Amino acid sequence: MSVLSPTPRTTIRRSAERAATDRAELYDVLDHALICHLGIVVDGDPLVLPTVFTTDPDGPDRDGTLYLHGSVAARSLGAGRRAQVCVTVTHLDGLVLARSAFHHSMNYRSAVIRGQARLVDDPDERRRALDLIVDHVVPGRAATLRTSTRKELAATAVLAVSLHEASVKRRAGPPVDDDVDVSRGDWAGVVPLSTRAGEIETAPDAAGHAVPAEVVRRAAALHD
Amino acid sequence: MSVLSPTPRTTIRRSAERAATDRAELYDVLDHALICHLGIVVDGDPLVLPTVFTTDPDGPDRDGTLYLHGSVAARSLGAGRRAQVCVTVTHLDGLVLARSAFHHSMNYRSAVIRGQARLVDDPDERRRALDLIVDHVVPGRAATLRTSTRKELAATAVLAVSLHEASVKRRAGPPVDDDVDVSRGDWAGVVPLSTRAGEIETAPDAAGHAVPAEVVRRAAALHD
Repeated sequence: MSVLSPTPRTTIRRSAERAATDRAELYDVLDHALICHLGIVVDGDPLVLPTVFTTDPDGPDRDGTLYLHGSVAARSLGAGRRAQVCVTVTHLDGLVLARSAFHHSMNYRSAVIRGQARLVDDPDERRRALDLIVDHVVPGRAATLRTSTRKELAATAVLAVSLHEASVKRRAGPPVDDDVDVSRGDWAGVVPLSTRAGEIETAPDAAGHAVPAEVVRRAAALHD
Repeated sequence: MSVLSPTPRTTIRRSAERAATDRAELYDVLDHALICHLGIVVDGDPLVLPTVFTTDPDGPDRDGTLYLHGSVAARSLGAGRRAQVCVTVTHLDGLVLARSAFHHSMNYRSAVIRGQARLVDDPDERRRALDLIVDHVVPGRAATLRTSTRKELAATAVLAVSLHEASVKRRAGPPVDDDVDVSRGDWAGVVPLSTRAGEIETAPDAAGHAVPAEVVRRAAALHD
């Protein structure tokens, strides 16, 4: 595997001390996230849409493959069915409340992947990618579902992007105030944030059926 | 105020039944969010970065102004200190777990704002925008902080975008499965998700100082 941030445009200059250098951190940020924001260029202007995704360390691309559900983006691909994209994943970990407006910040972990997206044409690769996306959301669930039909696969666009050109940035810890502000004796601190699961809601047309084990596990794990 | 989605490129075609038509829904999505994802075009390719923001219904733009902290994006503005941007805000409300991979989905509320961003040059507008951004994160906090210095204001880039060209999309409720899948008697349902605040962490250099009322209120309100 190559080092993280291997290109000039993924080398973090602003607040460089917040940049990660270990590729394992990229997978850590991605594998704990539920959605990403996909950026594409449409008629010269940027467009950013939320979507689901997964990583495949064994995918066909160098350093692994990112697969995303991309029905809207797929319409915007050029004749080569390829386009430059940016995929950004952000965990918001806390509100950083300093003594000055200037030093207010957020604790976060974010990953930015840039590269050429490819529309997945091969039915087998698309089926595998969609199963991985389901398992990314709820590990172990794909194996419990019926096989996707040819019609369903045809109606779902999947994009693939190499995980090669990527960077990770994060901030943690308390606010960092100027000494003169600290000396005034005001409060400062952090409100930690996390994504939590509520009570599982069984669909009305599934009343009486037991919640599957993988769903129970997923909800229990959602405390990050 | 104009209707929502006033331009062809903000008219939602895919899953149009999920499109909102009331501009109040735009403010509702934005005002309950803590970060946005800002998309810009750099050297022809998309770049998406998370950042903080606020809305100003009384801002200088038609239908109100979106202000964002944009130090990285500011470097990418052209000679006119303006650039087309896309600002996307997403609330993830739940995992929608159907009987087939195809009908798996997410419950969400998302807003997409497109337009020309302007670098805020006027010091008074920038100070007001930064105070509004602090208050967006913790309502009432800006008034408790010392005034930002000229040096701090000079070191902070703020972008302004009109809220005119915007769309809102959302999904709620249980999965919608094909009848043939429902008849098999498998479970289906939703794992609701929300962003929650943990225990407030006082900074080590503020030990012993009481947590301000506006911070306590903010943490208590963070259940959505």
